[in-house]
Amino acid sequence: MNDKNLPASDEGALARLAATIESRKREHGGDPETSYVARLLHKGPDAFLKKIGEEATEVVMAAKDLDHGGERSKFVGEVADLWFHSMVALAHYGASPHDVIAELERRAGTSGIEEKALRKAQRRASEEG
Amino acid sequence: MNDKNLPASDEGALARLAATIESRKREHGGDPETSYVARLLHKGPDAFLKKIGEEATEVVMAAKDLDHGGERSKFVGEVADLWFHSMVALAHYGASPHDVIAELERRAGTSGIEEKALRKAQRRASEEG
Amino acid sequence: MNDKNLPASDEGALARLAATIESRKREHGGDPETSYVARLLHKGPDAFLKKIGEEATEVVMAAKDLDHGGERSKFVGEVADLWFHSMVALAHYGASPHDVIAELERRAGTSGIEEKALRKAQRRASEEG
Amino acid sequence: MNDKNLPASDEGALARLAATIESRKREHGGDPETSYVARLLHKGPDAFLKKIGEEATEVVMAAKDLDHGGERSKFVGEVADLWFHSMVALAHYGASPHDVIAELERRAGTSGIEEKALRKAQRRASEEG
Repeated sequence: MNDKNLPASDEGALARLAATIESRKREHGGDPETSYVARLLHKGPDAFLKKIGEEATEVVMAAKDLDHGGERSKFVGEVADLWFHSMVALAHYGASPHDVIAELERRAGTSGIEEKALRKAQRRASEEG
Repeated sequence: MNDKNLPASDEGALARLAATIESRKREHGGDPETSYVARLLHKGPDAFLKKIGEEATEVVMAAKDLDHGGERSKFVGEVADLWFHSMVALAHYGASPHDVIAELERRAGTSGIEEKALRKAQRRASEEG
Repeated sequence: MNDKNLPASDEGALARLAATIESRKREHGGDPETSYVARLLHKGPDAFLKKIGEEATEVVMAAKDLDHGGERSKFVGEVADLWFHSMVALAHYGASPHDVIAELERRAGTSGIEEKALRKAQRRASEEG
Repeated sequence: MNDKNLPASDEGALARLAATIESRKREHGGDPETSYVARLLHKGPDAFLKKIGEEATEVVMAAKDLDHGGERSKFVGEVADLWFHSMVALAHYGASPHDVIAELERRAGTSGIEEKALRKAQRRASEEG
């Protein structure tokens, strides 16, 4: 998950955060009494999956507020919360942000992410139509 | 948002994807007839915000399936969908994945992301309790 | 809000709608080619569970729009969509809106729904705090 | 599923619950210190809208658990939570469960709720396809 040769970059930041989350697992010494992430991981999937649904809703609310004069930093902060809790789930299931980004890149690299989304939309359209 | 000197890295991947999304805006020549992203952006916020709620739900379902023998790649793919549609929203509101990651890093760098989340949980706890 | 003179009662409406959904099950002759509900039921849980997440998001968006001059009927329509897809899920799992309402009534009747919600909030508060 | 001998109707239960929620509004004497609903209403829309997103996610999780041996009563309880918080939102915006049910009935009565949903799916299909 860690690539030691990356410059200080967004990837570095995501990898560092993923490593921090990883270190909060019980088997790595994480303490639910003092760490929010350790507590989420200790409670199990329902705890952080529920947060993903909740944070997605908060992203939507902050976006709607932005449409009516709200602050962009609030919206960006909610997306950060959503991605953060996604990363807790990724860690629990033995995956990493790198896997997510690799998947995004794979789609873009082979047939284009849009084509992927487009095919999905068309498939759904034909199923529903 | 584009840094031509990045090595092939996750950061590169996110920045490239953000640039692709940016290019799908109408003012940059995006065509709703041929591009899924252009269509989402053209339809306006409700279209991609709804997708964020939908994809968050799909992440939760794929995670639950994983608990019962489902495939990890399906789960990772759903997180990719969630992040991808988040990035469409970010583009619409003039923000980028870099802003999100900078916010995550800022939290970790100053008082620690956990402390931030912990304070939030405690504040909510005291409000609710 | 209360209309004591309701001719065909709301209860009747929910029960009738539940019966209609029930009749769309394959074993009761529902045809996925002609019925939206039959198609959802035929596709299986992921299809209607995803809709619950999506419709919840649409309720939130319509509410936010209402805060800024949107129409109340749009909001009510989205809640109707949310309840409707909840009812499809209830039917699939062998439950009914009556079960949901009985649960709501049970909470109110025994210790009060608020006390239930309050205890839940307090329990969560103490877990998180 | 239908119980023709229901003494106090489901409608009665929903109307009573709606009346209780209404009474928790500040202008009707609701006290945020002692009432969960009064506190939600006092905090404003974001508080209960966020709960709708959260409870929708919990419905999905409980449904998935049901697929793997979980309890139906847990699932029904989560739908009850979802409908309950929907009703808090309805109250805030001056609407009621009766309005929701009337809308469901209106759809069923005029052209059929399925036709409505079907047309919506087809419209979306043609937009996406």
